[in-house]
Amino acid sequence: MPKDDIKEFRLVGTRPNRPDGLDKVTGRARYGADITAPGMLWGAVLRSPHAHAKILKIDTSKAEALSGVKAVVTRADFPTGLTGEEWNLQENTMAGEKALYDGHAIAAVAATSSLIAQEAVRLIKVDYEVLPHVTDVDDAIKPDAPVIREGAADASVPEGMPPNVVKYFEFGRGDMEAGFKDADLVMERSFKTEATHQGYIEPHACLGQLGADGKGEMWVCTQGQWFIRQMCSAVLGLNAAQLRVTPSEIGGGFGGKTTIFMEPLSLALSQKAGGRPVKIVMSRSEVLRATGPTASASMDVKIGMTKDGKLTAARAEFRMQGGAFPGAPVDMALYCSLAPYKIENVEHIGYDVLANRPKCAAYRAPGSPMGAFAVESLIDEMCRKLDLDPMEVRLKNAVREGDQASYGPTFGSIGLVEVLEATAKHPNLAVPLGPNQGRGVASGYWFNHNGETSVSMAISEDGTAQVSVGTPDIGGSRASIALMVAETLGIAYEDVRVNVVETGALGVNEPTHGSRATFATGKAATIAARAAIKEMCRRAANEWGIDEDAVEWVEGAAQPAGPNAGNYPPMSIKDIAKNMGATGGPISGHHESVPDGVGASFGCHVVDVEVDPETGLTKILRYLVVQDAGRAIHPSYVEGQYQGGAVQGIGWALNEEYVYGKDGRLQNPIFLDYRMPVASDLPMIDTMIVEVPNPGHPFGVRGVGETGITPPLPAIANAIQGATGLRMSHLPMTPTKVLAALKASQE
Amino acid sequence: MPKDDIKEFRLVGTRPNRPDGLDKVTGRARYGADITAPGMLWGAVLRSPHAHAKILKIDTSKAEALSGVKAVVTRADFPTGLTGEEWNLQENTMAGEKALYDGHAIAAVAATSSLIAQEAVRLIKVDYEVLPHVTDVDDAIKPDAPVIREGAADASVPEGMPPNVVKYFEFGRGDMEAGFKDADLVMERSFKTEATHQGYIEPHACLGQLGADGKGEMWVCTQGQWFIRQMCSAVLGLNAAQLRVTPSEIGGGFGGKTTIFMEPLSLALSQKAGGRPVKIVMSRSEVLRATGPTASASMDVKIGMTKDGKLTAARAEFRMQGGAFPGAPVDMALYCSLAPYKIENVEHIGYDVLANRPKCAAYRAPGSPMGAFAVESLIDEMCRKLDLDPMEVRLKNAVREGDQASYGPTFGSIGLVEVLEATAKHPNLAVPLGPNQGRGVASGYWFNHNGETSVSMAISEDGTAQVSVGTPDIGGSRASIALMVAETLGIAYEDVRVNVVETGALGVNEPTHGSRATFATGKAATIAARAAIKEMCRRAANEWGIDEDAVEWVEGAAQPAGPNAGNYPPMSIKDIAKNMGATGGPISGHHESVPDGVGASFGCHVVDVEVDPETGLTKILRYLVVQDAGRAIHPSYVEGQYQGGAVQGIGWALNEEYVYGKDGRLQNPIFLDYRMPVASDLPMIDTMIVEVPNPGHPFGVRGVGETGITPPLPAIANAIQGATGLRMSHLPMTPTKVLAALKASQE
Repeated sequence: MPKDDIKEFRLVGTRPNRPDGLDKVTGRARYGADITAPGMLWGAVLRSPHAHAKILKIDTSKAEALSGVKAVVTRADFPTGLTGEEWNLQENTMAGEKALYDGHAIAAVAATSSLIAQEAVRLIKVDYEVLPHVTDVDDAIKPDAPVIREGAADASVPEGMPPNVVKYFEFGRGDMEAGFKDADLVMERSFKTEATHQGYIEPHACLGQLGADGKGEMWVCTQGQWFIRQMCSAVLGLNAAQLRVTPSEIGGGFGGKTTIFMEPLSLALSQKAGGRPVKIVMSRSEVLRATGPTASASMDVKIGMTKDGKLTAARAEFRMQGGAFPGAPVDMALYCSLAPYKIENVEHIGYDVLANRPKCAAYRAPGSPMGAFAVESLIDEMCRKLDLDPMEVRLKNAVREGDQASYGPTFGSIGLVEVLEATAKHPNLAVPLGPNQGRGVASGYWFNHNGETSVSMAISEDGTAQVSVGTPDIGGSRASIALMVAETLGIAYEDVRVNVVETGALGVNEPTHGSRATFATGKAATIAARAAIKEMCRRAANEWGIDEDAVEWVEGAAQPAGPNAGNYPPMSIKDIAKNMGATGGPISGHHESVPDGVGASFGCHVVDVEVDPETGLTKILRYLVVQDAGRAIHPSYVEGQYQGGAVQGIGWALNEEYVYGKDGRLQNPIFLDYRMPVASDLPMIDTMIVEVPNPGHPFGVRGVGETGITPPLPAIANAIQGATGLRMSHLPMTPTKVLAALKASQE
Repeated sequence: MPKDDIKEFRLVGTRPNRPDGLDKVTGRARYGADITAPGMLWGAVLRSPHAHAKILKIDTSKAEALSGVKAVVTRADFPTGLTGEEWNLQENTMAGEKALYDGHAIAAVAATSSLIAQEAVRLIKVDYEVLPHVTDVDDAIKPDAPVIREGAADASVPEGMPPNVVKYFEFGRGDMEAGFKDADLVMERSFKTEATHQGYIEPHACLGQLGADGKGEMWVCTQGQWFIRQMCSAVLGLNAAQLRVTPSEIGGGFGGKTTIFMEPLSLALSQKAGGRPVKIVMSRSEVLRATGPTASASMDVKIGMTKDGKLTAARAEFRMQGGAFPGAPVDMALYCSLAPYKIENVEHIGYDVLANRPKCAAYRAPGSPMGAFAVESLIDEMCRKLDLDPMEVRLKNAVREGDQASYGPTFGSIGLVEVLEATAKHPNLAVPLGPNQGRGVASGYWFNHNGETSVSMAISEDGTAQVSVGTPDIGGSRASIALMVAETLGIAYEDVRVNVVETGALGVNEPTHGSRATFATGKAATIAARAAIKEMCRRAANEWGIDEDAVEWVEGAAQPAGPNAGNYPPMSIKDIAKNMGATGGPISGHHESVPDGVGASFGCHVVDVEVDPETGLTKILRYLVVQDAGRAIHPSYVEGQYQGGAVQGIGWALNEEYVYGKDGRLQNPIFLDYRMPVASDLPMIDTMIVEVPNPGHPFGVRGVGETGITPPLPAIANAIQGATGLRMSHLPMTPTKVLAALKASQE
C-alpha cells in the first residue's frame, strides 16, 4: 500500500528537505578533494603500462633529485609478512614482484605541487619483463592460461582445476535428474556479462598524514571510514586506534568506495616526508584503470518448467573473474540468482578465476545482476515458448514467508508476492506496444545486510538532539535517521542533526554498504534515542519523587504514567535539557550491535523498449520499478534508490563495459568511451513503493539500495526479445551487437 | 611522598612522551589559524576607539561597495530580545546602543582577502557621542561615577549602593568583635591588584560557516567547544544541535578561551555571505583590548592573631571591576582568600563593579590570587611583627579534613598539612640569604571543579582503544587520560589514543577549566573503560558458556575468576576485539555525569628574591612550588602546571598590568609594553609533588592547574619585605614602584 495511507507516524513517511540539501545544491559540501591542510604535499602514482610484467628494477633517483619532491615510495617501504586478504590489499595498493594489471601502482611521489609530483612520476625508471597476460574470464579459466599467481587457490578448489581458479562453490538440494524429468520444457543457455564500473561522479581523493610516532589522520571520500582505518592499518602495520579517518561528503560510491586504493600511499608518503600531509586525487582514467570495477561473468543456466509454468529444477554454473585477486562475487551471484523462486531441485556451481585486471570491488548488489541476467532471461524465454504470462509464472513460483530459499535459509517476512501483485496492476502494463517495441519483466533480489554498528546520540542544552553515526550519507540517510530519531523523541525534524563522524569519535561501524544504513544505523539510532528517553524519564521521576516506571514519554515530554503516579504537568525535553547539569549531568543514549532482523527486499521491473532496426539502438520508452521497502522512512530517497539502481542497470545492460585491447590495456578509461547513461538518454523512471513492514526494524525498514540494479539487465534483454524476437545473451546489448544479431537473424 | 615510591600502578605515575608531542614539536599540530576551507573569506572587526560612547549611526555603504567585500554585519543583524548573561554575551560580541570600552566591536566585514577586509573596516563610518568614562575600580565605585549601564544591578545589591555596583556579597560566621578581642595583634591593610591578561601565545582564531538553513560549523581555538556552541547558538538564535564546533589545538587558554568573542561574528558574516566560511584571526592588540582579562581589585583585610600565632578573626572586603558587564570573580576571591586557615570568626564583603573595560573572563583560579595577595601579605607582615615563623603559623592554623572552610562547606580529604610539612623540610629553605635578599612564603587554594562530562571509548578491531573526550588538551590531558585508560584496560600506553572531538560527536562537556580535565574527564574515561571491560568479560563468558560474574579482567585479558569457573586460558583484549563482530558487535564504553568527589588542592610557595637598591628591580633567585596533586598521573605535566602557574603569578606580581590612559584607551596592547616574564627572566622553578590521594577519583587525582598561580603574588611581596623591609601593597611591584618606595622609606 502506498505510504500516504499510513497515518500512524507523525514524521516517518514524510518528505522534508534533506539536512545536507542546502550544502549540496550550493556547492558548500566538502568532498574528498576539497580538504587541505597547512604544509600539504601532492601525491601522484606511477602505474604499470603492462597487463602482466615482472618488475626487475625501480630507479627513483631522478625523481628524488627533482626540486620539490619530498618523498618517493615503492613496495620496499611497506611492511612485509602479510597474509591472506591483508596481503591482497597491500599487493593491490602497490605492486610487489609483478605488475598484475594495466594501471597497477608501481611507485608514488609526494611533492610541493601536483605538477612536480606528476613530473617526478615520469622520471621514475622501471625495468619490466613483460609476461603473457589474460583478461577474459573464459580465457582465464583455460588450463593453459597464463598463471596470475601460483598457490592462490584456497581449500575449496578441488585437485586438477585450471591454475587461475582460486575458489570453487558447489551447493544445492533435491534430485536434479528427477526435477528435470518432471518438466515439460527444459532449456539450457549460456550468458555473459562484462565488467562495469560503479561510475561514481567523484573520483577517489584523500589527504593522509602519518608521523614517525605512528599517529595518523586521514580525510577521505569513502563509504566506510572504519574499513579505511582497518585496511590502512593492516597494510602499513599501524595500531588502528592511532589512525583517525574522517569521511568527506561522498559523490557516489555504490560499493566501490568500501576498500583502499591510494589511501595507504598517501600515509606512507606522508611518513617519509616527515609527517607533512599528502593529498592524492585520482584522475578519471586512474579511477577506471585502477580502482575496483565489478567482475565479468560467463554463465550456464539450465531450467525445467511444466507447461503451466511451475519450475521443477534449475542448475546454475557461473564463472567470474574479479581481477588479479580472489573475490569475484560468484557466491552472491549464485545465492541471488534463483532466490525469487520456490524450486525443489537446485544446483549451484561457481568458479572464482584470476585475470590480469584490477581487483574487483563491490558494486551495488554484488553478483546479483549477473545471476539475474542469466536466470531471468532464460525464464522469460521459456515463458514465451510455452506462451505463459511472465508475471503469472513469477507469481506462481514466488517465495513466501517460511519458504526455504534456493540457497538454504528460510525466509522471514518478505514481500515478493505483494510486489508482483502490485506490479501486475500498474498502468504501465496496459500501455499498448507499437512496432519494434517490446516489454520485458524481471525480478530481483538482495539479501540486505546488517553489519557492525555503533551510534551515539546526545541531547543538547536546548533540548535539540544530535546523532553520531558512522555510515556516510550517500542516499539520504541523514534525512531518514533524523526522521526516525525525531519521531522517537517526539520533537521536530529540524531539531535533530545527524552527524557522520570520524573513526576517533565512535565505536566501530561497517560502511554504508549492503543497503544497511537506514536499516542498521536507523535501528541503532532508534534504540539509542530510547535509551536517552529512559534517562529523561528517570530525571523527571527523581524530580517528582516518583518511581521511574511510573513515568512515560509522550510527545516529547515525560509525564506521569497514570493517575496514581501523581498529578505533575508534563516535563518537556527542553525543560529536562536545560536542567540536566543540575540533575545528573549530560544526557546521551548509545547502542552498539550487529542489529538483527534484516529484511530481504524483492523487486520487479517492467520495461518497454523500442529497437531501431536501422541502427540497432535500444530506446527505453518507459520503465517501472516496484520494490518492497518494508517502510519508506523518506519516500523520496527510497524512490531515488529505485531510480538510481534502474539507471545503473540500464547502463550495464545497454552500454557499459571494460574494453581490453590485445595488449591487455584498458581501451576506454574515460567517460567519453566508457559510456554511462545520462539524463537525456532516459525517460523518468516510474516507481511504486510496496510496504510489507520488516518486523525486525522498529519502523519496519528493509534496505532498498541494491535490489534495484538487478532486474534491469534481464528485463531489457527480455524486452528486446519482445521487440525483435532476438535473445541477446551477451551484455552490453550495444547497437552494434543488436544490429549484428538482427542481420544474422535475417540471413 | 614523591611518586617514585608508589609501586602499585603499572603506568600511572610514569612519564611517557605526550601523544601530541611529535605534532607540537614539529609544527604539525593544527592551531586555530591553520584551518582553511574552500571558498573561505576573511573577517575583520571594526572596534571602538572610545571607552564610552553612544553610537549614533553606522554607515557601512562604502565598505559594502568595496570590491571583494561579501558581507558586513552590525548589531542590527543579530536577534533581539535576549536577557541576562545571554544579552551580556551578545552585547560584548557586538556593541548595541553604546560602545562600552576601548576595543568594543562595532561592525565586522567578510571579504575575499584579509587586506580587503581590513580596508573595508576603515571605510565604515561611525558617528559617536563620546560619554564620560571610568576604568579604575575605586573610581568606578564612587557614587558620582559615570553610569555604565542603568538597571544592571541584581537582587543582591541593597538600596542606595553606588550605581556601578551590580552584585553584592556578604557572608561569614562567628563573633567578629570577640574574635578581634581575643587577638594580641590586630592589623588592617588595603591592597590593590591590576588587571592582567592570560597572555596565551595563540591569539583567538576561528573559521565559521552558517547556512540559511541554520546549520553551521565552526573550527575554533577554544577550551570548550560546547560553551562556544551554546553561547553562539544563544547569541544568534540557533538550535544548538545544528551547530558543530570543532576545537583546534590550543596555544594556551588559562580560562580566557572559555567564552566567545569574534566567533558569532564569523557565523553571522558567513550566513550573510551565502554560507561561505569566514575566518577571523585576532591580532595581539585585539586580544589585549577586546578579549577577557581578569578583574582588577581593591581590597581591605583585617586580621587578629595571638602572640603564638593563632588566628582569631579575619575580615575581608573586596571590590572588583570585571569590565562593563557583571562577572568579576569577587565571590571566588572571598571564598579562597581565607580557605587555608581554620578561623572561628570570619566576615566577607564583596562588590562587583562595572567599569569601561572589556568583559573579564576566567583567568586561572579566578579571584583567588587577588584574595591571597591581600590575606597572605597581611599574615606575613603580622608574623614578622610577632617574630613568628610564617611556616609554623600556617601549620598551626592549617585546615584539615573535617574542618569547616572559611566560606562554609566542610573539607573532605585535603593535603594542606602534608604540603606545609613537606615545604618546611625542603632544602631551599636552608639556603642562606645575602644582602638585599629576602625569602617569602605563601599558601594558595583552589576548589577544583567537576562539571558536566561525557566520555565515550571504543575498542578497535585490533584491540587498541580510543577515547573520545570533550576537554581540549591544554596541559597534557591526552597523556594523563591515556595512562589511566591503559592502566584500567591493562594494555600499553601506546595502544590508547585520546581524541578531543567536536560537539557533534559526543554529549555535552564543560570546557577544560576549573582544573577539571584530568579529574573529571579522567574519571569518566576510567568508568567508561570499566564498562567496556564488563562487556568484554561478558563476551568471554558467553564464549566459555559460564556465568558473566565468573569472569574477571586481569592484565588486559578476561579469565575465569577462580578454579570453579572453569579451566579456560585467558582471552586477551586482542582476541576479543578480533571477533567482536561475530560475538555481538562493536565494544564501547560510555559515561556521562557531573563526576562527584572533587578534591581541593592546596599549595605552598617559597621564593627568594634579591632587590637591586639602585634600580628597584626584583630578581627571582629561586622558587619552590609544593602542592598536593592527590595522585600525579603524569608527574611531568603536574610539574608543568606548577611551574606555569608560578610563572604567571610572578608576572602578575612584578610586571603585568593593563595601563589605561586618561582617554580610557588601553596604552599597552602589545607584548613589548605588556611585559610578561620570559624564560631568561627566571630560574628553573623547583617543584615538589605531594600526594594525598583524593578518595573521590579512581586514581586519587586532584586538579592541579590553578592553585599554583595563587601564592606567587603574596610570596614575592613577602620576600620583598624580607629584602627591603618594605610592604608593597599595590601590584605590580615594578622597579619603578619599588624604587619609589625605597626612596620614600629613606626620606
